[in-house]
Amino acid sequence: MALHVLHYLHQDRAQWGVVANGAITPIPGEFKSTAEFIEANPVERLFLLSGPTIPESEVQWLSPVTPNQQFICQGANYRQHMIESGMDPDVKKFNMIFTKATSCIVPADSPVVKPVGVQFLDYEIELGLVLKRDITSRETVTEENLHEYIAGAVIVNDYSARDVQIPQMQFYKGKSYRTFGPIGPYLCLLEKQDISKLKELVLTLTVNGTVRQNDSTAGLVYGPAETLTELSGIHDLRTGDLLATGTPSGCALSIPSPEKMRAAAQLPDAEKWRLFLKMQEERPQYLRVGDVVEAHIVSHDRSIDLGVQHNVVMEQAA
Amino acid sequence: MALHVLHYLHQDRAQWGVVANGAITPIPGEFKSTAEFIEANPVERLFLLSGPTIPESEVQWLSPVTPNQQFICQGANYRQHMIESGMDPDVKKFNMIFTKATSCIVPADSPVVKPVGVQFLDYEIELGLVLKRDITSRETVTEENLHEYIAGAVIVNDYSARDVQIPQMQFYKGKSYRTFGPIGPYLCLLEKQDISKLKELVLTLTVNGTVRQNDSTAGLVYGPAETLTELSGIHDLRTGDLLATGTPSGCALSIPSPEKMRAAAQLPDAEKWRLFLKMQEERPQYLRVGDVVEAHIVSHDRSIDLGVQHNVVMEQAA
Repeated sequence: MALHVLHYLHQDRAQWGVVANGAITPIPGEFKSTAEFIEANPVERLFLLSGPTIPESEVQWLSPVTPNQQFICQGANYRQHMIESGMDPDVKKFNMIFTKATSCIVPADSPVVKPVGVQFLDYEIELGLVLKRDITSRETVTEENLHEYIAGAVIVNDYSARDVQIPQMQFYKGKSYRTFGPIGPYLCLLEKQDISKLKELVLTLTVNGTVRQNDSTAGLVYGPAETLTELSGIHDLRTGDLLATGTPSGCALSIPSPEKMRAAAQLPDAEKWRLFLKMQEERPQYLRVGDVVEAHIVSHDRSIDLGVQHNVVMEQAA
Repeated sequence: MALHVLHYLHQDRAQWGVVANGAITPIPGEFKSTAEFIEANPVERLFLLSGPTIPESEVQWLSPVTPNQQFICQGANYRQHMIESGMDPDVKKFNMIFTKATSCIVPADSPVVKPVGVQFLDYEIELGLVLKRDITSRETVTEENLHEYIAGAVIVNDYSARDVQIPQMQFYKGKSYRTFGPIGPYLCLLEKQDISKLKELVLTLTVNGTVRQNDSTAGLVYGPAETLTELSGIHDLRTGDLLATGTPSGCALSIPSPEKMRAAAQLPDAEKWRLFLKMQEERPQYLRVGDVVEAHIVSHDRSIDLGVQHNVVMEQAA
């Protein structure tokens, strides 16, 4: 059975607790990283936890993924999103992988700061998977053994400065600004029988109450098992590391049609990017200071409910 | 005055020492990361170090950058390299930034493993800069205060699987394979008066004794001060983190001319990449099993000598 934990600040102390119905049962111990927390607290043992509770309303959320973990992301990984971007999800060419700097990680209710000079701030709701063990050599991860590799799931919002990310080709910089990675609120720890529900989670993102993204993880192109298999053959992964699995359609970003892209490729670079930016200017969906972004991920049976992220877009202090 | 330190294994213990003329003076203490080593050992104090020495030939090299640091890289950052790639270095458009997974870090004399399925393994000699302090907000780094931010310099070889890196667009995966990041051997710690020499280092890379890359850091397009200023406005950097500053011309990679690229943009994606890979097949410069790659970085006056990397290309074990 899935079990929801919260990383939080209470009476100036960072703690972890099991959360249910608005009440937190604190978990004894201090853990300096998500890895330490997961290694010390197998989900089976947390089910036996008892003791006095504190109301969730009295604590301050912290990110369940600490910044001393890897933050690895998949790109263009939802069927509908690929189709809208002019790609054919049935012709799987490669699993696009990039990273975000972990100093972008903030709690799920943090403001998101629109950096000075960034014009096109966009949202990306994503299912984040948190690793259960170290992977230091090639392994074959399957639907059957996936529960040995994945400790749990979180909401990730992969905020992106499109005017930096896209023209600069490498996604890292435009996605790594401070506050661009709210994670949580809940880390839902999974048992073997819960793993199949990762394929039927509903992701919903709203801006000022209007739905912008709404899709199911059923639309994922490269699933967690094949992604971890491939990554294990390339580099090491550690307990507590985060894999953000990509975002569904509905972002502010407007990607030119393949025809337009072919035409634009004939232009000098500066002209090509001028047209790209002009195209983005016509998209009122880009975030403005004061906008409220909410993100929610839940399973059909509600046994997995990763909570609701709430971010207000703020101006960067001068 | 520049001072050269070595991270090494001796009698099964990881240690640090000051190295000069083939002899190592061990530095007392144990340091779990490059950050801990740098914070505990200001260069001024290391000059006062004395005591018995051990011959360098008796130790095993370790990377002076530990895997619990960030590994940040600049792309297309040498004038001649940009010109050969059809770019104009005088029209500075952006400072391309990406990362490598730190599990690719190996000692400077490690074999480099050519992964199964990778056809086009390439080398990239780079000057690596190791940070002296944490940067957690926007700062203005200049030639004058650069010594407050940079602890020292190392050789980095940014090995790359071109058939993964280029067609998959995001560089991370094709550059993150295990063994793809030899660092060292020496970390040359710099004092204020040494910093200007970072602009006149000579980089030389040979394959089987034949020079392939040979250039000076005078050809850097985005220098360390402006790069750190920009990055400080985006994300945090920590003491001991590594900035690899890009590679000069002379890699095996063959980049099509701008005209060819414009023509290729009209083709279906699969055909475009087929042509790209075919073009690479004509380059005998790509590394083969058994090739010996040596990399050396030294200042004109030899006061900064980062040592010689020596990597033999190995087949991946089945």
